[in-house]
Amino acid sequence: MPWNAIETPYLRVDQPRFDNNIQRLNCHLNALNTPLRPHVKTVKSLPAVKAIFNGGTGPITVSTLKEADFFAQHGFDDQIYAVGIAENKLPHVKRLIEQGIDLKIILESETQACNVVEFCRLHDVVIPTLVEVDCDGSRAGLTPDSQALMAVSQLLADAQLFKGVLLHAGGSYGCSTRAEKVAAAENERATAVRVKDQLAGVDIACPIVSIGSTPTAHFAQDLSGVTEVRAGVYVFFDLVMANINVCSLDDIALSVVTTVIGVKPEKGWILIDAGWMALSRDRGTAHQAIDYGYGMVLDAAGRPLDGWVVESTSQEHGIIKHRAGLTDIPSDIQVGDQLRILPNHACATASQFDKYYVSNAEDELIDEWPRFNYWT
Amino acid sequence: MPWNAIETPYLRVDQPRFDNNIQRLNCHLNALNTPLRPHVKTVKSLPAVKAIFNGGTGPITVSTLKEADFFAQHGFDDQIYAVGIAENKLPHVKRLIEQGIDLKIILESETQACNVVEFCRLHDVVIPTLVEVDCDGSRAGLTPDSQALMAVSQLLADAQLFKGVLLHAGGSYGCSTRAEKVAAAENERATAVRVKDQLAGVDIACPIVSIGSTPTAHFAQDLSGVTEVRAGVYVFFDLVMANINVCSLDDIALSVVTTVIGVKPEKGWILIDAGWMALSRDRGTAHQAIDYGYGMVLDAAGRPLDGWVVESTSQEHGIIKHRAGLTDIPSDIQVGDQLRILPNHACATASQFDKYYVSNAEDELIDEWPRFNYWT
Repeated sequence: MPWNAIETPYLRVDQPRFDNNIQRLNCHLNALNTPLRPHVKTVKSLPAVKAIFNGGTGPITVSTLKEADFFAQHGFDDQIYAVGIAENKLPHVKRLIEQGIDLKIILESETQACNVVEFCRLHDVVIPTLVEVDCDGSRAGLTPDSQALMAVSQLLADAQLFKGVLLHAGGSYGCSTRAEKVAAAENERATAVRVKDQLAGVDIACPIVSIGSTPTAHFAQDLSGVTEVRAGVYVFFDLVMANINVCSLDDIALSVVTTVIGVKPEKGWILIDAGWMALSRDRGTAHQAIDYGYGMVLDAAGRPLDGWVVESTSQEHGIIKHRAGLTDIPSDIQVGDQLRILPNHACATASQFDKYYVSNAEDELIDEWPRFNYWT
Repeated sequence: MPWNAIETPYLRVDQPRFDNNIQRLNCHLNALNTPLRPHVKTVKSLPAVKAIFNGGTGPITVSTLKEADFFAQHGFDDQIYAVGIAENKLPHVKRLIEQGIDLKIILESETQACNVVEFCRLHDVVIPTLVEVDCDGSRAGLTPDSQALMAVSQLLADAQLFKGVLLHAGGSYGCSTRAEKVAAAENERATAVRVKDQLAGVDIACPIVSIGSTPTAHFAQDLSGVTEVRAGVYVFFDLVMANINVCSLDDIALSVVTTVIGVKPEKGWILIDAGWMALSRDRGTAHQAIDYGYGMVLDAAGRPLDGWVVESTSQEHGIIKHRAGLTDIPSDIQVGDQLRILPNHACATASQFDKYYVSNAEDELIDEWPRFNYWT
């Protein structure tokens, strides 16, 4: 099928960039002797995840039990479900474990730990559990050195459910300089190791010490003491990551292809058939170095239209304007032309679609990768 | 199935509110003797759309050709696809028309009109076409009184494809007072009728004069001269509509049910298992009278937790904080509790899910409505 037979909007993956992104992080972590447990929440697609493992399988991180189910069916039997567990999901977790999946859950409170211990006792199942540790105050987890962290870990260890600790340096998304990212990575590692040592002090072994975020995974200089690193968005990268210098614009492997459905020279507007339903409502670049609106505009060949961004969106319409208020629309942009939009946040944009159209280096359409969404 | 057996996050519809919302607009438009062509982009669900038509079918507006396909298969044979047409979609439109669907398309340029005329000539098909007219400068359409509007209409009329005009008062989303909304509605109507009269002056008949937006549909005082009204989000309503006084908070029929997975009293944070993947990234209330963050928080019984909103989100995590910075978390909120989040924008939040769980007035789970997303 030729590209122009595909109805717009659609999602395009540039496979050479995708492959390069995978290889770059693999090399970096190989050099640091630490395995990667990729977060499949970004791609939610079997061929994409298989590409990460060079055609095979390996340990993965999931953000929903639907991901767990799907990848379990395809041979990925070592998983961490990296969202604090809710009791209503325990029967689902049990089903996966009884299918032979080594699915680890995470939690951060005595209430959750008691629920899990009690559920396992009642149902005669072992749910391996990690305690979530907060290394930078950005989201979830118990603080290191806290009494609660030790108490929750002990509760799980007594029931032989404790399997380790999990940290996520979410604060690293605010680090634009190299030094800041290196420091965030070292803080994530050092916090994890400190907690592991505290637990060792009370005879609780920590077989899994899992850390990671895309910025810290790429800028870690030392990973001694941790057993694995997690990252997700690095396979596609996006404008948020480019703005904090984790990647360059030329590394971004994902774009939304759209058609120009109106041109308003008097206003400097280009109207496209990609609105928030295609681009997502993500405005992650709003407070970064460069605000790309709802995405940066490229022409059909992938060349940047310098300064032009998707300034506003409704459900199936986008309005492209110039960031600096120029109203001279590039003269070669006409109704019917196709454009590509680079995403602010690849996880959010990809989640608006159920498939990827894949391009090789010669700009040929070589594959279609199905993806899924939702929770159950 | 009891509610608490459903894994969170999930989408809940309160059917009595949904039914009331449908009835309210039906009564209003009946009184004005003008039929409604509901926009199914909000619900994308057969039982929901059938409920709008009291179990039957009727004229609908669609935002994607996937909606057109789906509802065509279920007997909805009078449709308008209300996004300016791109040439790559014409073969799909042709297939629908050849199935017997009276599918109208819209456009706003001579380029598009020429493409459609040429496509119809080459493929011996008649694609009924409306010209999009801009009544308030907010998005798409040709301006009334413009030479281009007359030229495009003439081009289509000469090929016997012209079927009328379509307007959308998108600017009405910025109208908070009753007087502003009444004026926006009258401007939308009067603009449509003016264009119809201009076309009549050059012997172009306008069998369809289609206008509408949820605010103007509810505040129109007179609809003489228009043949139909479109509205979509009114069936669910949302915080954006409540903020501009089109509905009250008690009319909002849609909520995301989520579980508390962490409580941080020292920060005044409640952590939930609904992030932007469940709530959407929509921040439509950001610049309105009340900024609800990513949504307004209710307890499990639907009572507001006054002032508490979802302040930030990542993919599967939300952080609830108090709008005024209070840090005293309501004492009865515990890890494991369920909460409900009212959406900023119901179209965006609903699009994150593939089903609705439906409640009756007694808070019983009475139905599951499947919904779909995507484009093809």
